[in-house]
Amino acid sequence: MRERLTEHGLAFLRQLAQDPERVLAGDEISEEYSHDELSGTAGWPQAVFRAKNVAEVSAVMRYANEHAIPVTPRGAGTGLVGAAVAVAGGILLDLSLMNQVLELDEDNLTLTVEPGVLLMDLAAYVEERGFFYPPDPGEKSATIGGNISTNAGGMRAVKYGVTRDYVRALEVVLPDGEIVELGGKIVKNSSGYDLMDLIVGSEGTLGIVTKAVLRLLPLPQKTVSLLIPFPTLGQAIRTVPLIIRSKAAPTAIEFMEREVIADAEEYLGKKFPDHSADAYLLLKFDGSSAEELERLYEGVAQICLEQGALDVLISDTEERDESIWKARGAFLEAIKGSTTCMDEVDIVVPRSRVDALVEYTHGLQAELGVRIKSFGHAGDGNLHAYILRDGLPDGVWEEKLALAMEKLYERGRQLCGQVSGEHGIGYAKRAYLSESLPPRILALMRAVKRAFDPKGILNPHKVCEP
Amino acid sequence: MRERLTEHGLAFLRQLAQDPERVLAGDEISEEYSHDELSGTAGWPQAVFRAKNVAEVSAVMRYANEHAIPVTPRGAGTGLVGAAVAVAGGILLDLSLMNQVLELDEDNLTLTVEPGVLLMDLAAYVEERGFFYPPDPGEKSATIGGNISTNAGGMRAVKYGVTRDYVRALEVVLPDGEIVELGGKIVKNSSGYDLMDLIVGSEGTLGIVTKAVLRLLPLPQKTVSLLIPFPTLGQAIRTVPLIIRSKAAPTAIEFMEREVIADAEEYLGKKFPDHSADAYLLLKFDGSSAEELERLYEGVAQICLEQGALDVLISDTEERDESIWKARGAFLEAIKGSTTCMDEVDIVVPRSRVDALVEYTHGLQAELGVRIKSFGHAGDGNLHAYILRDGLPDGVWEEKLALAMEKLYERGRQLCGQVSGEHGIGYAKRAYLSESLPPRILALMRAVKRAFDPKGILNPHKVCEP
Repeated sequence: MRERLTEHGLAFLRQLAQDPERVLAGDEISEEYSHDELSGTAGWPQAVFRAKNVAEVSAVMRYANEHAIPVTPRGAGTGLVGAAVAVAGGILLDLSLMNQVLELDEDNLTLTVEPGVLLMDLAAYVEERGFFYPPDPGEKSATIGGNISTNAGGMRAVKYGVTRDYVRALEVVLPDGEIVELGGKIVKNSSGYDLMDLIVGSEGTLGIVTKAVLRLLPLPQKTVSLLIPFPTLGQAIRTVPLIIRSKAAPTAIEFMEREVIADAEEYLGKKFPDHSADAYLLLKFDGSSAEELERLYEGVAQICLEQGALDVLISDTEERDESIWKARGAFLEAIKGSTTCMDEVDIVVPRSRVDALVEYTHGLQAELGVRIKSFGHAGDGNLHAYILRDGLPDGVWEEKLALAMEKLYERGRQLCGQVSGEHGIGYAKRAYLSESLPPRILALMRAVKRAFDPKGILNPHKVCEP
Repeated sequence: MRERLTEHGLAFLRQLAQDPERVLAGDEISEEYSHDELSGTAGWPQAVFRAKNVAEVSAVMRYANEHAIPVTPRGAGTGLVGAAVAVAGGILLDLSLMNQVLELDEDNLTLTVEPGVLLMDLAAYVEERGFFYPPDPGEKSATIGGNISTNAGGMRAVKYGVTRDYVRALEVVLPDGEIVELGGKIVKNSSGYDLMDLIVGSEGTLGIVTKAVLRLLPLPQKTVSLLIPFPTLGQAIRTVPLIIRSKAAPTAIEFMEREVIADAEEYLGKKFPDHSADAYLLLKFDGSSAEELERLYEGVAQICLEQGALDVLISDTEERDESIWKARGAFLEAIKGSTTCMDEVDIVVPRSRVDALVEYTHGLQAELGVRIKSFGHAGDGNLHAYILRDGLPDGVWEEKLALAMEKLYERGRQLCGQVSGEHGIGYAKRAYLSESLPPRILALMRAVKRAFDPKGILNPHKVCEP
């Protein structure tokens, strides 16, 4: 049984922090701490503890474990599935003050960071120094700790893989407060079970990441983007498997529709560089020279034109690139701004089947009479689809949302997909996870959870917990 | 308590196979099945079952689980740490007949294989079709199932990572016979805990891989190798961090010594293309054009010459390339042929510290009066060092071997390394693993083992089991 935080517990936290601004309780807790970036999941912690170092994190967990008090770790709160919401009350452990870059190791090509470093700051830090951290989720103000917790993917996953592929070592505080190190500054490791990759993507339910050693690459010397207008979205997306088959190895392949672009234009107050079409593919290539890139993208441009593309716009200046990718980066906020309330699915399917999934969302929109906007990673099969409430009254919205979700996830399963490509399961998607996975897999996940957290105090009711 | 296989059990196996050549017992079991590629670990199974499909694997496990009979999965038997040796008797489950390539999916860039496919056959299959499977361990006659079980790395890990990075999905038979699928033909996945990566590297102790979906890349259009003689090994290895710092991103950086090369020349009956030096770096680059590669390796050649390299030999023909890499590939067998008996360490350290580790092996050789030969992956910090028995009598050999091992692993720990970079822990390295990891990590690993295999029948006494 989990317990509530007592006055004694709150006094312990205040004593530990020695700083009233880092322990919040009652009215001191701002509304922001009760939810994340999407509105579905809500819950107030009894106290917020803003940790400054691993010793504090360890002390909080030791106390919480002894007294069976729930603890929910949290970064920047930019999640979409409620993973960082304190649905069981207790302590919200805010790691955003632990935001230092600790070491750039040029011999081992690693960067050691605290979990609260923001993705945009991390990218800027390494790129200024000629290095490259490939994972590139749209949300740049997320923390790296949050990215590790969800195994975030981002746009460059097509060529470079996901966050998991760039984690070399983790310092983790276990639910009872013990501090362990997993992995190392090593390129290979076959020394026992891979507990580090269990922590990656576990959404703060198995341990709290307090330090990470990340793998870097040399910064590619040249990049070029292609913006390719198509008459229809179907034509655009059906071209993607042909690009993959051509072995051109693009860095990113995104698709976008006019409607979503229009929202982004309004949100940013800036025009998108092309208005000729209803649907676009946006590709990025990187490499070591302009000639190398030209060879790569010329073949792809040819394929797109053969498939009916209206044009191929080449962007090789920073300004133009920024105007395109800024729009792409603003899609989530822009769609959010276009409606009253929304919820999302983050289904991932084999990339050859993403066209079938997108077509399905279009049909569903008409069938249910709700707006569904989607964009996403055509190159890696990860679709972000948003179901918009607009003016629907309470009961109707809930009914239609539930139906839309159920049907989308069912279609995802039929297409051999998984519930989440990168946003995670958190609190909001548990039912869909447990429908999509066989009971035995869920039982194994729960057994793993018990092995790490026998009292069930760390981020309860998340991922695989009923 | 584990039980022995009874006559009843043997009859069950014979009934299941319907083929006397696929169930071996008593004298029918050849001596090969009692050990792996290194002689340290020995053990005879009571029966060998040569499975042809997943249904048989599942049936064997169901029976074994019900009757608490140990089962040891085995591929080609090329392991070095006894992981595939039936030290607890029972059934040896030979998967080498399950050796079909099932599907090349060009839309999703995946290859689906049975576990018994040999690495060399896999490489040939995909390369003929213009694709590339990057993991490249020296032992080409290992099975892909074995590679997945140890998370093998190989020479191209410097640029491309290890086996784990190329596994997209697994079909796994759990210890009680249930068949589960983990992962999918998907590029991203954040749908619950990463059980798939737990299976990768678990050396057949958590489940039996019966099918794997592997990620492919387009085959690089050009490769070039540089063979770089240095006056001393120290100079050669100390140049490696400078190469890494130069951001040239080589595919492989191997080091080799004259002595080991001489063994390989004798073993292969073929001369190595250079005899000018005692120590060499061997580098590989790949890319899309000869010009791109030239730009990459010219900088590296300059760095090597500045560090005292005697020459830089460029190999861009297939014949020359083969004569160099064949020698490299034969090192293990060649060293084995040069002595009576040997054992190995496979320590991995941060790549900036591999010079310190190699230097230490040289000192230790003198200190203990045993020959220690080493070669390995200078670019990824993974040293393969072999301790040779030569003419030492029983007691002396055991004492010196134990001392050498202990000292090497201790030095590895001091250098922030791990016990195994790619060979795994198996049976032979368990003591060193448990010395190198904190008790809590071992306890977590054992809890994971219990979650998968509560009866402890699958590959007992391996990895983290006492």
